Amino acid sequence: MQADITSLQLFMLQMVELEDAAWDDMLQRLQHRRYKKKDVFIKEGKICRELAFVLKGSFRYYKTIDGIEVTTFFSFEHYWISAYTSFLTHLPSFITVEAMEDAEVVVLNYDDMQYLYDHYVSFERFGRLMAEYLVTCLDERMHSLLLKTPEERYLKTLNDNRIYFERVPQHYIASYLGIAPESLSRIRKRVMQKVIS
Amino acid sequence: MQADITSLQLFMLQMVELEDAAWDDMLQRLQHRRYKKKDVFIKEGKICRELAFVLKGSFRYYKTIDGIEVTTFFSFEHYWISAYTSFLTHLPSFITVEAMEDAEVVVLNYDDMQYLYDHYVSFERFGRLMAEYLVTCLDERMHSLLLKTPEERYLKTLNDNRIYFERVPQHYIASYLGIAPESLSRIRKRVMQKVIS
Repeated sequence: MQADITSLQLFMLQMVELEDAAWDDMLQRLQHRRYKKKDVFIKEGKICRELAFVLKGSFRYYKTIDGIEVTTFFSFEHYWISAYTSFLTHLPSFITVEAMEDAEVVVLNYDDMQYLYDHYVSFERFGRLMAEYLVTCLDERMHSLLLKTPEERYLKTLNDNRIYFERVPQHYIASYLGIAPESLSRIRKRVMQKVIS
Repeated sequence: MQADITSLQLFMLQMVELEDAAWDDMLQRLQHRRYKKKDVFIKEGKICRELAFVLKGSFRYYKTIDGIEVTTFFSFEHYWISAYTSFLTHLPSFITVEAMEDAEVVVLNYDDMQYLYDHYVSFERFGRLMAEYLVTCLDERMHSLLLKTPEERYLKTLNDNRIYFERVPQHYIASYLGIAPESLSRIRKRVMQKVIS
């Protein structure tokens, strides 16, 4: 396990000076877990009590509406997964998070997170910086949905998150962008024509 | 000034046990400021270096697209204003924040915030909890834009933020909900008919 979590250590050290004691204490509390493609991390309607760092593979967030899965987010290696609002509020999650590919993660539960916040100032700071980073992502996403055209959203995602177009089926990307699959096909065609001409 | 900021103290004490030294230190750094209706707190394209707590009045967030102001958010008394993503990243703000009514605020600048984070663990915790709260708001808003119909968004806002319908002009609410003003009128009429019948 030790080798695997180097990416987590690097991720955290980029953000805070985490003293050895904090890191060692966190290590004791981490639970290593594997997911097969389509396995569920958290199901809509359940209260999410865990946060996980993705070591390998990817996850998809979605809500089922009238029998159709509407995709809202993706997480890949070296990023976190959680129904974070449910995790923070203890209310039922309004989304499902499931493995989009076979995956490996390390999990921290809510009580351990609070313990680490209480005992290590560096961990408290890490929590603040993580939440602030998430604010910037969600703020940009919300403004993009309110202010940008579907084509602008497509081009921005193509630019900022090329990995989506390499590892995510196209119909998942359409609902992530808030557009119908056939609109995404039209946009792709139009953008390709602009590139060619 | 002392009387005015009781609401800020109550707001913070609900979230953390703020020791007297932290509160007194913050007080020294707060700048009291008044805004007339239409005065700008931060303009699109500028880097936001301040965060303010609204003591009185209200503010509107918007972006100008092709000469039209598209409203994205409102803040009232006992809440914060900032172009928070710009504040955190030091990149130009993609929105303007201006007074929607005559207003009074207390302002903290970026450097003072960092100083307080560095010197008081309780302030660091307050920063984490504030950012986490903002995550839950933005997360819900983003999912609402992706997953809910305009009528569902209208009803939820009517339920959760009735103050908007009391103090915000209707055309601002339409763009906040991500719908055309004429659609909002139709939705209001439809909902009223359901209530009556």
